Amino acid sequence: MGLFTKDIKTMNDLFVHQLQDIYYAEQQLTKALPKMADKATDPQLKQGFLTHLEETRQHVKRLEEVFKMHGTEVKAVDCPAIDGIIEEADETAGEVADKAVLDAALINAAQAAEHYEIVRYGSLIAWAKQLGRTDCAAVLAKTLEEEKATDKKLTSLAESRINLRAAS
Amino acid sequence: MGLFTKDIKTMNDLFVHQLQDIYYAEQQLTKALPKMADKATDPQLKQGFLTHLEETRQHVKRLEEVFKMHGTEVKAVDCPAIDGIIEEADETAGEVADKAVLDAALINAAQAAEHYEIVRYGSLIAWAKQLGRTDCAAVLAKTLEEEKATDKKLTSLAESRINLRAAS
Repeated sequence: MGLFTKDIKTMNDLFVHQLQDIYYAEQQLTKALPKMADKATDPQLKQGFLTHLEETRQHVKRLEEVFKMHGTEVKAVDCPAIDGIIEEADETAGEVADKAVLDAALINAAQAAEHYEIVRYGSLIAWAKQLGRTDCAAVLAKTLEEEKATDKKLTSLAESRINLRAAS
Repeated sequence: MGLFTKDIKTMNDLFVHQLQDIYYAEQQLTKALPKMADKATDPQLKQGFLTHLEETRQHVKRLEEVFKMHGTEVKAVDCPAIDGIIEEADETAGEVADKAVLDAALINAAQAAEHYEIVRYGSLIAWAKQLGRTDCAAVLAKTLEEEKATDKKLTSLAESRINLRAAS
């Protein structure tokens, strides 16, 4: 869809636009997560990023499934929000000298990405239901649950030891 | 703090950096919210944005209070994440032709900003506690509660009528 062309005329158009946006975001995250895993020093955090990378690859496939179920071309549109979230993660990580502090910063960065996705999948599911596409909503809901579970795991890891080590 | 200079050496440095980042984000939101209120057609949504604008101005003041409590210079650093979130909101809103669909898109955009802030304040509060600054944590927690309440109000408004109108 082109800028300033007012291509979104119906909720269905908005739904498809948002699908294309999150499709781009998930693809960018499959590139960002291996770098975050490389930088992490805590073994559980490193493994957490790698596990979520596998889930993210699955999320990309699920989105392709939803595009097909909905009879729409599989396509990505630029998503300045996820680009900004990843850019900020890179910049902040690049400024951290201490490894334990870097782990705390990486968790914070990853949670920004998770919450971005939680909002977008939440809206997509609500809109799919409104459009009578409970089949699409059900597929998207699987991903939303995994994003929420990852966010909780990150909070628990930060609270159980990463923050303590970073402050010591 | 300069890029590539590894200025963040301790959790305290990370805490201050994140304070500067969210200080910039809140300031940008005080500029974005009036525009979102202008674009909204649903009266309750429009009023919701204006109410949250007042809260956001208060959040800026609370951050200045935390900087002072912590004995740190009041300063903002660029926050590419909030810039990206606002840019995406503008772009998507600019593409929507239908007013009811635009309201649904505006809610989705506002929730992306709210969740960004929820993550950042969540980390700031956890780090403040770890640093023994329960006084700073208490001030930041007031803002976090308001961000969460705004997010819930937006979901409730979307589910109660905005999405229904947008799909009809």
